[in-house]
Amino acid sequence: MQKKTVLIIGGGAVGAIAALNLEAGGLAEVTLVLRSNYKVVNEKGYSFESCDHGSIKAWKPSVVRNTIPDVKKESLPLYDYILLATKNIPDVPPTVVDLVTPALPSNNTHTTIVLLQNGLNIEKPFLSSHPKTPVLSGVSLIGSAEPSPGHIVHDEPDKLFIGAFSNPNISSSLAQSRAQDFFKIYSAASRTQCTYSPNVLHDRWRKLVYNACLNPICAITGLDSGRIRLAEGALNGLVRPAMREIICAAKAVGRVELDEGIVKWTIEMDPLESYLKPSMQQDLDKGNFIEFENLLGEPLREGKKAGVEMPTLEVLYQLAKAIQWRNKERRGMVDIPRKK
Amino acid sequence: MQKKTVLIIGGGAVGAIAALNLEAGGLAEVTLVLRSNYKVVNEKGYSFESCDHGSIKAWKPSVVRNTIPDVKKESLPLYDYILLATKNIPDVPPTVVDLVTPALPSNNTHTTIVLLQNGLNIEKPFLSSHPKTPVLSGVSLIGSAEPSPGHIVHDEPDKLFIGAFSNPNISSSLAQSRAQDFFKIYSAASRTQCTYSPNVLHDRWRKLVYNACLNPICAITGLDSGRIRLAEGALNGLVRPAMREIICAAKAVGRVELDEGIVKWTIEMDPLESYLKPSMQQDLDKGNFIEFENLLGEPLREGKKAGVEMPTLEVLYQLAKAIQWRNKERRGMVDIPRKK
Repeated sequence: MQKKTVLIIGGGAVGAIAALNLEAGGLAEVTLVLRSNYKVVNEKGYSFESCDHGSIKAWKPSVVRNTIPDVKKESLPLYDYILLATKNIPDVPPTVVDLVTPALPSNNTHTTIVLLQNGLNIEKPFLSSHPKTPVLSGVSLIGSAEPSPGHIVHDEPDKLFIGAFSNPNISSSLAQSRAQDFFKIYSAASRTQCTYSPNVLHDRWRKLVYNACLNPICAITGLDSGRIRLAEGALNGLVRPAMREIICAAKAVGRVELDEGIVKWTIEMDPLESYLKPSMQQDLDKGNFIEFENLLGEPLREGKKAGVEMPTLEVLYQLAKAIQWRNKERRGMVDIPRKK
Repeated sequence: MQKKTVLIIGGGAVGAIAALNLEAGGLAEVTLVLRSNYKVVNEKGYSFESCDHGSIKAWKPSVVRNTIPDVKKESLPLYDYILLATKNIPDVPPTVVDLVTPALPSNNTHTTIVLLQNGLNIEKPFLSSHPKTPVLSGVSLIGSAEPSPGHIVHDEPDKLFIGAFSNPNISSSLAQSRAQDFFKIYSAASRTQCTYSPNVLHDRWRKLVYNACLNPICAITGLDSGRIRLAEGALNGLVRPAMREIICAAKAVGRVELDEGIVKWTIEMDPLESYLKPSMQQDLDKGNFIEFENLLGEPLREGKKAGVEMPTLEVLYQLAKAIQWRNKERRGMVDIPRKK
C-alpha cells in the first residue's frame, strides 16, 4: 500500500506528536510546516519524552519546511491530507483558510482537511472557501507541552477522536470513508488511542465543558485547574454554572445529551495537585492571543440562538474579548488616542 | 471655639488630603496614624502638589503616629472624631472595627466615626460593635495619588459628601448634628467642596455605578478607564449591563432613583485620554487586595435579596472573589496541597 501524504501545519506540542505518530505507523509520509521552532527542528530535530512513543532524540519527519507549500508554483502533487495543528484564532489574521490556501485549490476534491483544533463551527469557513473539500474533526485529549523549542514532553496519552464534519456539498459516505481512512493511518502506530467517532458534535460539545468553562475561568482569574478547585466558592459560583449552561446548549443546539456526571468528570480531569494551567491561561501568561471565539463565542452564540440562557458564559465571553483587545493593543494592532 | 480632635487612620492619598484640609481650616487638631509611609512622613513630612491647597513641602499634622492610640492605656481623652481613610477589606483581617477598637470604647457615645470609604453597608459592623456611636458617611470624589511615600499629587478637587448613616440606637437629630458639625470643620478651608448631604444611600449608590462596575471590569480585564471605552464591545457587553443592574438595585433596595444619564456621566467621568486606572486595577497591579466585598458583593447581595436580576455583577463578583483568593494564596494566607 502506498503511503498517504500528510501536510501538517503547526509543529508545536500537538502537531509534533501527530507527525511522529503518523510516521511511526508507517502508512503516512509527513511534511511538517514550522514557524517559531523551525530553525531548531530543522538543524537538530525534535527530542521527545513521550508516554506513547518513548524517549526519542533528533527526530524529523520526511519533510520539514518553514513555509506553506504552494502546490501550483512548486508543481507539487496535492496532499492526501492537510492536518491543521495550529491555534485557531479567527479574530486575529491570518485565518486558517488563508493559511492553507496555497496548498489547497478552492475547487479541491482530492485533499482532506483534518482540523486538530478545538471549538465549535471551525469547519464553517471551509464550507465557503473550499465547498467540496471533506473536512474532518480531530478532538484530542492529549497532554503534551513544548517547554523549549523542539523539546516535546508528552505525558498524557494521545487520545484522538476522528469523525467527518457534515458538509451538504459532498456525500456523507465520501466524508465518512475519508474519516475512516485517516483513522486507519493514525491508528497504525500501536500505542495511540485513536477512535473513529462519527458523532463529531458530541465530541466537540463534550470538550467544550472544559474549554468554554474552566479554560476561560482559569485564564481570567489566573488560577490553574487545581487552584480553581480550592478557591472558596469558585466551583459553585463560576465553574458549575458555566458548565450547566454548556450542557443545556449542547442539548438545544446539537441534540447532544451529556451525562450529568460530565461536570464532576471534567472538573476532576486534570489532577488537582498537578496545578495544570489550561491553554488560555498559558497563552495569556505568555502574552499570546487566546482561542476564545471558537471555544466560548461560538457555543455562546449557538446556545443563545437556540433560546438557552447563558448569563455566565456571556460575561466570561465579554471579558475574554476585552482581554484579547488588550493584547492586540499591546502588540500595536489597534490605534488609540495619545495619552494627555 | 475649641478645636475638635480628629484621629485619622490611614495617611495615603486620601487621608493625607483630609488631614491637610482639616488643619488648614483651623477648626481641627489632627492625629494621623500611618503605616507604610510612617518613617518618611515622620522624618520629613509630606510634600503636596494639590489643586486645592497648592504646593506644600515638609508638612505634618499636629500628631503623627504609627500605632492606633490606646485611649485607656495611654490615658488619652476620647477623640471627637475618628476618620477612617484606609482601604476597607472585610475579608482580610483586621477588620476596620478591630482596627479602631483601642481608640473607641464599645460603650462610646462621645466619639463620632467618619467612614471615608467606599461601598455599601460599611457602617453595619459598627452597629453591632459600637451600637451608640454615631457613624458618618464620607463619599469622596477626589482625584489624588501617592506616587512615592509621603508625596501626594492631588489633581482632582476634594469633593466630599458628608451625611449620617442611619442608626436605630441613637436619635437621628443627634446623628445629623454630628454630620453638620463635621461638615463645618471640614469646610472651613476655603477651597474644599464639601457638601452636607443627608441622603447617604443616594450618594453611595451613585458612586457604585462606577465602583461596582467600571472598577472591577477594569481590574479583571486589565484595561484602564480610557481603554475600556475603546475596546470593541466592552461598553455595551459589560459596562452598561452592569451599570443598569446597579441602577435597578439602587431603586429596589435603597429607593434611590438614579438618573438614566448617570450611565453616560459615569463612563465619561475619567477623561478618556488620561487612561486612569480605577482603584481595584491599581491594587491588583501592585498585588494588593481589592475592596470587592463592599463595592461589589454588598450591592449584589442587597439587590438579589430585593429580587433584582444581576447576572453581570454576579459573575464579576465571583471572578473578583477568585482573584482575591489567588492573592491570599500568594501571600501564604491559604494552605494548599503540595504539588505532585
